[in-house]
Amino acid sequence: MKSILLIQGPNMQYLGRRQPELYGSTTARELDAMCMDHARRHGYRLEILYTNHEGVAIDRIYAAVDEGLDGLVMNPASFVRSGHGLNGCMRAIPIPYIEVHMTNLHARGFESILAPTALGSVAGFGLDSYRMALEQMHRLLTGQRDWAPA
Amino acid sequence: MKSILLIQGPNMQYLGRRQPELYGSTTARELDAMCMDHARRHGYRLEILYTNHEGVAIDRIYAAVDEGLDGLVMNPASFVRSGHGLNGCMRAIPIPYIEVHMTNLHARGFESILAPTALGSVAGFGLDSYRMALEQMHRLLTGQRDWAPA
Amino acid sequence: MKSILLIQGPNMQYLGRRQPELYGSTTARELDAMCMDHARRHGYRLEILYTNHEGVAIDRIYAAVDEGLDGLVMNPASFVRSGHGLNGCMRAIPIPYIEVHMTNLHARGFESILAPTALGSVAGFGLDSYRMALEQMHRLLTGQRDWAPA
Amino acid sequence: MKSILLIQGPNMQYLGRRQPELYGSTTARELDAMCMDHARRHGYRLEILYTNHEGVAIDRIYAAVDEGLDGLVMNPASFVRSGHGLNGCMRAIPIPYIEVHMTNLHARGFESILAPTALGSVAGFGLDSYRMALEQMHRLLTGQRDWAPA
Amino acid sequence: MKSILLIQGPNMQYLGRRQPELYGSTTARELDAMCMDHARRHGYRLEILYTNHEGVAIDRIYAAVDEGLDGLVMNPASFVRSGHGLNGCMRAIPIPYIEVHMTNLHARGFESILAPTALGSVAGFGLDSYRMALEQMHRLLTGQRDWAPA
Amino acid sequence: MKSILLIQGPNMQYLGRRQPELYGSTTARELDAMCMDHARRHGYRLEILYTNHEGVAIDRIYAAVDEGLDGLVMNPASFVRSGHGLNGCMRAIPIPYIEVHMTNLHARGFESILAPTALGSVAGFGLDSYRMALEQMHRLLTGQRDWAPA
Amino acid sequence: MKSILLIQGPNMQYLGRRQPELYGSTTARELDAMCMDHARRHGYRLEILYTNHEGVAIDRIYAAVDEGLDGLVMNPASFVRSGHGLNGCMRAIPIPYIEVHMTNLHARGFESILAPTALGSVAGFGLDSYRMALEQMHRLLTGQRDWAPA
Amino acid sequence: MKSILLIQGPNMQYLGRRQPELYGSTTARELDAMCMDHARRHGYRLEILYTNHEGVAIDRIYAAVDEGLDGLVMNPASFVRSGHGLNGCMRAIPIPYIEVHMTNLHARGFESILAPTALGSVAGFGLDSYRMALEQMHRLLTGQRDWAPA
Amino acid sequence: MKSILLIQGPNMQYLGRRQPELYGSTTARELDAMCMDHARRHGYRLEILYTNHEGVAIDRIYAAVDEGLDGLVMNPASFVRSGHGLNGCMRAIPIPYIEVHMTNLHARGFESILAPTALGSVAGFGLDSYRMALEQMHRLLTGQRDWAPA
Amino acid sequence: MKSILLIQGPNMQYLGRRQPELYGSTTARELDAMCMDHARRHGYRLEILYTNHEGVAIDRIYAAVDEGLDGLVMNPASFVRSGHGLNGCMRAIPIPYIEVHMTNLHARGFESILAPTALGSVAGFGLDSYRMALEQMHRLLTGQRDWAPA
Amino acid sequence: MKSILLIQGPNMQYLGRRQPELYGSTTARELDAMCMDHARRHGYRLEILYTNHEGVAIDRIYAAVDEGLDGLVMNPASFVRSGHGLNGCMRAIPIPYIEVHMTNLHARGFESILAPTALGSVAGFGLDSYRMALEQMHRLLTGQRDWAPA
Amino acid sequence: MKSILLIQGPNMQYLGRRQPELYGSTTARELDAMCMDHARRHGYRLEILYTNHEGVAIDRIYAAVDEGLDGLVMNPASFVRSGHGLNGCMRAIPIPYIEVHMTNLHARGFESILAPTALGSVAGFGLDSYRMALEQMHRLLTGQRDWAPA
Repeated sequence: MKSILLIQGPNMQYLGRRQPELYGSTTARELDAMCMDHARRHGYRLEILYTNHEGVAIDRIYAAVDEGLDGLVMNPASFVRSGHGLNGCMRAIPIPYIEVHMTNLHARGFESILAPTALGSVAGFGLDSYRMALEQMHRLLTGQRDWAPA
Repeated sequence: MKSILLIQGPNMQYLGRRQPELYGSTTARELDAMCMDHARRHGYRLEILYTNHEGVAIDRIYAAVDEGLDGLVMNPASFVRSGHGLNGCMRAIPIPYIEVHMTNLHARGFESILAPTALGSVAGFGLDSYRMALEQMHRLLTGQRDWAPA
Repeated sequence: MKSILLIQGPNMQYLGRRQPELYGSTTARELDAMCMDHARRHGYRLEILYTNHEGVAIDRIYAAVDEGLDGLVMNPASFVRSGHGLNGCMRAIPIPYIEVHMTNLHARGFESILAPTALGSVAGFGLDSYRMALEQMHRLLTGQRDWAPA
Repeated sequence: MKSILLIQGPNMQYLGRRQPELYGSTTARELDAMCMDHARRHGYRLEILYTNHEGVAIDRIYAAVDEGLDGLVMNPASFVRSGHGLNGCMRAIPIPYIEVHMTNLHARGFESILAPTALGSVAGFGLDSYRMALEQMHRLLTGQRDWAPA
Repeated sequence: MKSILLIQGPNMQYLGRRQPELYGSTTARELDAMCMDHARRHGYRLEILYTNHEGVAIDRIYAAVDEGLDGLVMNPASFVRSGHGLNGCMRAIPIPYIEVHMTNLHARGFESILAPTALGSVAGFGLDSYRMALEQMHRLLTGQRDWAPA
Repeated sequence: MKSILLIQGPNMQYLGRRQPELYGSTTARELDAMCMDHARRHGYRLEILYTNHEGVAIDRIYAAVDEGLDGLVMNPASFVRSGHGLNGCMRAIPIPYIEVHMTNLHARGFESILAPTALGSVAGFGLDSYRMALEQMHRLLTGQRDWAPA
Repeated sequence: MKSILLIQGPNMQYLGRRQPELYGSTTARELDAMCMDHARRHGYRLEILYTNHEGVAIDRIYAAVDEGLDGLVMNPASFVRSGHGLNGCMRAIPIPYIEVHMTNLHARGFESILAPTALGSVAGFGLDSYRMALEQMHRLLTGQRDWAPA
Repeated sequence: MKSILLIQGPNMQYLGRRQPELYGSTTARELDAMCMDHARRHGYRLEILYTNHEGVAIDRIYAAVDEGLDGLVMNPASFVRSGHGLNGCMRAIPIPYIEVHMTNLHARGFESILAPTALGSVAGFGLDSYRMALEQMHRLLTGQRDWAPA
Repeated sequence: MKSILLIQGPNMQYLGRRQPELYGSTTARELDAMCMDHARRHGYRLEILYTNHEGVAIDRIYAAVDEGLDGLVMNPASFVRSGHGLNGCMRAIPIPYIEVHMTNLHARGFESILAPTALGSVAGFGLDSYRMALEQMHRLLTGQRDWAPA
Repeated sequence: MKSILLIQGPNMQYLGRRQPELYGSTTARELDAMCMDHARRHGYRLEILYTNHEGVAIDRIYAAVDEGLDGLVMNPASFVRSGHGLNGCMRAIPIPYIEVHMTNLHARGFESILAPTALGSVAGFGLDSYRMALEQMHRLLTGQRDWAPA
Repeated sequence: MKSILLIQGPNMQYLGRRQPELYGSTTARELDAMCMDHARRHGYRLEILYTNHEGVAIDRIYAAVDEGLDGLVMNPASFVRSGHGLNGCMRAIPIPYIEVHMTNLHARGFESILAPTALGSVAGFGLDSYRMALEQMHRLLTGQRDWAPA
Repeated sequence: MKSILLIQGPNMQYLGRRQPELYGSTTARELDAMCMDHARRHGYRLEILYTNHEGVAIDRIYAAVDEGLDGLVMNPASFVRSGHGLNGCMRAIPIPYIEVHMTNLHARGFESILAPTALGSVAGFGLDSYRMALEQMHRLLTGQRDWAPA
């Protein structure tokens, strides 16, 4: 059974109350339930970490890798601008990272300093962005390569 | 039945022969077969257009919208830099656009001038990027909102 | 009888349906009728070309010059950003060019790379911008110089 | 009867003697006569103010608005670079402003910081630029909308 | 009795009528009354100068300093961008300057070229910004240092 | 009784010992006493938090808002440069924020990335900056609007 | 017998009539004759394509490569600025590309975005630039390496 | 007898009291006496104008030229940054302009937007800068060309 | 006996496993042993702190200074980009700081925002960088000035 | 008999040993032999100067021009970045200059500050670049204009 | 008797033949004669050094200072861009430096990196620039301070 | 016995007299004695070259390499800005280079264009910087790797 860590960056715990015109009214708790349910149905272990501290995120990633983590999915939120330590962490660890954004980052004039360290990214689909990223991470980890050449 | 247009930008017809270390060895023809098969299995109409001409892409989008197009999926390739006309087109048409990239554009130092006009984007998953984008477009068009709040 | 070519750049054929809060609801067809009527009343030949292809615009300009074109009026639309070929064309041809914009380009943060090749420009008056540009082009071509010094 | 204020920015009083290769040899006085004649023939009140002082221009605009001014036409000359106070003034007053330039500002590498506050602009037609701007201002103020949709 | 000069920069005399969504509907005259009343109650001399001319502001400051001015409070308005002469003036005079802004300048993307010459600044509190600045200037001039260390 | 949180950013706990030529010799402890005394005299609850961790500041703000916080006053210190997470936090919470700086930030060539999220700011008055900000926050929260129009 | 494709970018068909002070008065037709004669004398197949359309150039290059093209010589003209699709094409094809300019591009303040994809470039020698580039391409293709080390 | 106008820009009337570490303690009045004495001894007419208003400077220059002015010497002070109107004035008038600075402008990180319109400049010699500029202007106007080739 | 604090910034605890082509395969634990051995042999107290949290580093530095710390050696790792709080801390504390980098930071296109606060820096010598920095810090603290002038 | 000077800029004497993956293994001595042989066969005088000193290059160029030099061919190497003196020299001398580069300078992210002073340039063909430049220089000097219009 | 060193930077030895439209037709030899004559008449020792080598200039300045040089006058020519070593030299030596330019450097878009190290500068007066600079240097060295305050 | 070349860049021969507040009062001669003594005690051959000429430095480096040089230590001084030729030289030679600076270059706002070619750098320790660099170079050359992993 594969193990995935989902990190929610700064201010994500306030989801549902934070700028609902951008992020909708689903709460962090409700999103967690959806993600855990997804993990259960697809058969992988999922840990979810909300943190406003870059250091906490880095500490947890290294510890999780030592515990056998297989893949990292993260909505870096404001770490897209200040997460230089996370950038080094991503380059150091031997597992894939998929970046998730609920909104279309680019339409809002942002650029992610973490994106260059990611395998790929999904952005702009609201809650669905999480579903797409988790699903794709699981497919990659379990070698589901139906779109690979014969 | 929903109708989706998939546009492949400049040089994409050379897929499989073009910088295989970046884009793999699957050919454009093989990718087309996968996409058409996806459309058949999920029950939507799919038109695929390869073009090296920005004007041809714009012309086809307007015509397709007039013919009842429901959604646009595009790998803009080099139009991410020069597609100012497409940018205006995206802002003009009343249907959603999802941007697709096989590679992690950001890791290669590019920025897409079309991204701000997209609903969302999927990048970095190779051929899988197409599957994810088509699937998500179809879900959106058919109102599959299982990750929406109760 | 003088001959004027009016070129409408990318996305202009969608006029009336494209961002009506910016461009109004008059359609391209209705605008054409107004322009042709203007030509009839003032006694000049008018050809109108809508194109999303920079190359088509350049091809037509050279051909028209060879056929005896006297003046060029153009709403370059997105060519203001990408029309480097048109820029060279304007510098090559021996006839005057007047640039037209329905909106106040400057208020929207744009700059036209074609403007330096124009005799002059009219911007921000909606459909009236076309009338003013066509009228002024005709006056210039027919030597109506009532505001010239004695 | 509509009332229009025409402001001539820094160095315009030297017209005819100032860089005649750019601005021609018609003097400020001769241009005034043409403008006043235009006002008389079209039936509107015209006040012309030449000033090298940004503050004088702002003072006059506010006073004129209080006296019932209907429209402002201005050749800001060097105020295109330094007229930050005029910029605020334009945003404050409830009447339309049309910007006039005798030369093609863009071909000379300038940008107008006032342009974003204008309804529209006319540039590059020498003395004719004034005629076009005054005429269009008068049409707008008197509701002559023959190029409006039916 | 201390003497304070309050300078209101370009367009401030139009307060109440100018972009009320930004500056509110209180008029310049009403604000003056509040300030004069504040001076009366706190026991200092207050002169208020509205000007759209940078030169007039500079002239008045030098004259006032010669007449015994103790402190300068100014809402530089558009002088924040063009007031290079005022910048030199501030550096020349031997009295303190406090900068006032009704709106949060920074939230609107401005930077004040005068700020480096100020003792301090108060911004974003609407009319209250004036009260805070005048009060603090008066405290400084009269040596009210209750927040100073023992 | 209103509740205000005063956050002191990085290195502020070293006040009195840190670059005294800039920040004076009053210690953090002495400043705290002045602030608490101000709260007692004006009748509001005041909590003071010193932290060098952006994450701790964000965590506390969300918790305090949940506990009924009415207003936030903060001297962000070096968070003016790196506090992207705080920026998101400010945009998320439904209470006003006033930014405080002991020195004239602008005279030292800094810009605050948090300023755009603030209601207003006070800078350059040393310890007095805190008094002015706390007093104004309390006035706003208790609706003291004596400088508002009749 | 080696096969070389010579592409002439935007506005080159107007050679001889276009800014003769820069490009001389030899016409495109005359240049073609010289090139074809060169091919005949040196024994290689030469195809010349004039196009104002980037897409047409890309389409032709791919088709020609499929037909057995050995080398590409191109005067990209304005494609030096906008030819991002051609840039991708050059990186995709397995044959050498030599860039040609009649004028010294650098002396005119231009930079070619295509240059990094070229084997080499020849610029500034007028019509001779073509001769030098064609000759060198032919030498490379036929392995004439008399300046190679022993 | 030649006629020279010496303009002293913003804040120069405060000479002697303004930043004496930069500008010395000689007052404007004392400098005037030195200049007038220089004029008397060398036999030219000298008018000195101190102004903080760019418009006043421009007005006076045009009037003086009309009255027969032969040469302009100016210490533009802060006009080096904001004097766009003066820049146009210099380009308009048919007489030479020499720029004077008491300090080494360049060592203080400034650049003069007026310098390109000057015949030449003298900077960094304190009061002597005026003497050198006036003397050189007089030599030029009276054709003293002892350093010219035989 | 002198007391030195060695801080290892973000991701340094992963040394030996992190990008070994850049940082080698020696682990953090092995490096610690070398440093402690160095301290023992040279007779100074050494504390080593690994942290991914900027706030933890700042907290520890202040506490250590209060406990009598004599010198700080730090490999700031990604703090070279985001450590604005540390920058303020360095300016606040009264003890010397030496910056250490295992790699040649400059060859990798980085710049350290902390460097200006350092006494000096050693970069590019792998593990030796630590030895050189510790040794030099110890020499400075113990006044070994054999390379000082007589 | 025409006289050509070939200057080899900094580090070129190390050819064959310097970054052979870029510059090949032919030595400077071998290249010299090829060039001298070329001169002999084509009947022109060739002087070759290797120098790491910009001043030496300038001195030699002026002396050679005085001795009757007809043309200059130079591989400026690092002078492309620092050769401001050479730039002035090229503008001063009355003979043509052709710039040579063994590698495709543009593909390596360089720009030549000398290029604007050249008649033309040849880059990217390794040793062949020298042959092409020398040959073309000789053709120009001897008036071989077979590609000129009739 | 004071001793002055006049350094003529790169390409100045070609004066009279170099771009005569900028620098006139007087030769370096003729200028030297004028300067030596000036020295003789004013009673100071003058050494003139022409060099295209920055190192030679630096070497000579240090040697001359050791020999008792009193002042340095230099036309740095292209050293204004590349003379970083001279910049350090100027900061090291204890004698004044006056910078000379025959043309108005600023009107040609240049900036001198040496200017910040100069006492003052004279630019734009052709050969007269030398006379003015030498004369002023001599006055400074001999304490002729007739424009100093009483 | 290993052979090391120490190059002292522009103005270093003036050490002790040059800006002593930055570089101290030890003279170049005294520093040389310390370095030679260091070489004698550690048993390596040391050559010291002072030069203000970049070309001389390059010439000497190549010659020394041919004579069997083992390592290069250099204080490039102003070559950090202009030493593009040295940059190429460093890339060409097969021996290690260590960069030395007496001051903390970064604290003074400089960046070294040579740093990317260095093995490592030592900066900010005054004369000690030389000792540290020489010692480390000698250790590297003699394989003293006591801090290498077991």
